[in-house]
Amino acid sequence: MTQFEKVLKDATQPKKGRLFVVSGPSGVGKDTVLDVFHQALPDVQQCITVSTRSMRPGESEGHPYYFLTVDEFRQRVDNDGFLEYAMVNGNFYGTPREWVEERRSQGVDVLLKIDVQGGLTVRTKDREARLIFLMPPSVEELERRLRARSTETEDQIAIRLLDARSELQQIPNYDYAVLNDVVENAADQIRAIVLAERCRVSHQE
Amino acid sequence: MTQFEKVLKDATQPKKGRLFVVSGPSGVGKDTVLDVFHQALPDVQQCITVSTRSMRPGESEGHPYYFLTVDEFRQRVDNDGFLEYAMVNGNFYGTPREWVEERRSQGVDVLLKIDVQGGLTVRTKDREARLIFLMPPSVEELERRLRARSTETEDQIAIRLLDARSELQQIPNYDYAVLNDVVENAADQIRAIVLAERCRVSHQE
Repeated sequence: MTQFEKVLKDATQPKKGRLFVVSGPSGVGKDTVLDVFHQALPDVQQCITVSTRSMRPGESEGHPYYFLTVDEFRQRVDNDGFLEYAMVNGNFYGTPREWVEERRSQGVDVLLKIDVQGGLTVRTKDREARLIFLMPPSVEELERRLRARSTETEDQIAIRLLDARSELQQIPNYDYAVLNDVVENAADQIRAIVLAERCRVSHQE
Repeated sequence: MTQFEKVLKDATQPKKGRLFVVSGPSGVGKDTVLDVFHQALPDVQQCITVSTRSMRPGESEGHPYYFLTVDEFRQRVDNDGFLEYAMVNGNFYGTPREWVEERRSQGVDVLLKIDVQGGLTVRTKDREARLIFLMPPSVEELERRLRARSTETEDQIAIRLLDARSELQQIPNYDYAVLNDVVENAADQIRAIVLAERCRVSHQE
């Protein structure tokens, strides 16, 4: 490493890997956007959430969640096993603390795809976490996407839409807001946010 | 504009165009990197600096500077015509305030390619300005680049190198540091910084 590269590293590199949070209303397209993002920036590792939700046909352990019973989940909570957890649509979802800490202590940047409440909890525990809010272009488009995936009933769709409008009020507590009108653009903007944060001069004393 | 797009605009859009500053040691390759950057992001307008330096063969009015006599320059200073000005290597360089204000009031993002002292002056006048420091990979590479452009004498090269090492000490006062090892990478990182800043949620009260 040259003298200048050392100066750069000292100025921009945190002691451990960075922590990024991506939240957004149900149906906004987080998975699709993050798939494209990870292809562009494979060195950011996404944490797999632990959930008490029932496994659906086609799902398996770790895809998309690690599945626990409510009792197992409670034990993990009691053992401080979650960086954050929250109940969403009647099920619990948690971020395994150890997995995140291990990666970050190795200098790996970690991304959490979690709900807004979870994002705000992460922020209280790590002020350096960067919170990204993924936005749908409109209520109508969100409704169309929710209908297209055919996993919710009409009542559930109405609830999701109402919930989305409430979540939007948390944008001022986030660091970045990205519009998901075109998947590739949204993924490119999240990539830009990660690259920019890697160039950021750290002002910790 | 949909209701959600309005929410996004309110959260991320400042009242006027953003102000970006790119600084870095003489010979680091600012012009080359910014040429590639502007091709990728042509809606960011770069301000042309006013200078008292003598016009060199091949240069003309506005390329790369607007050329003024010291007397004309002093009059502009007296009339508060510069956002910042500084003496660099025995000549004065200034950023025309009116040009910058006009573009920004039209919502255009403006980029200033100015020296470190100028960058710090801009920061005192606009806390929202984003300061980007472009770094050479090493002293040796900087020396090689300075020699390659054949515009400086040996004595001047020695002075530039000493000056570079002093400027590097200002990195903690900058927001971002970008390594110019490969021009395309450095340009991509500056593009990422601008895109990320455009997604940033504004926390002004």
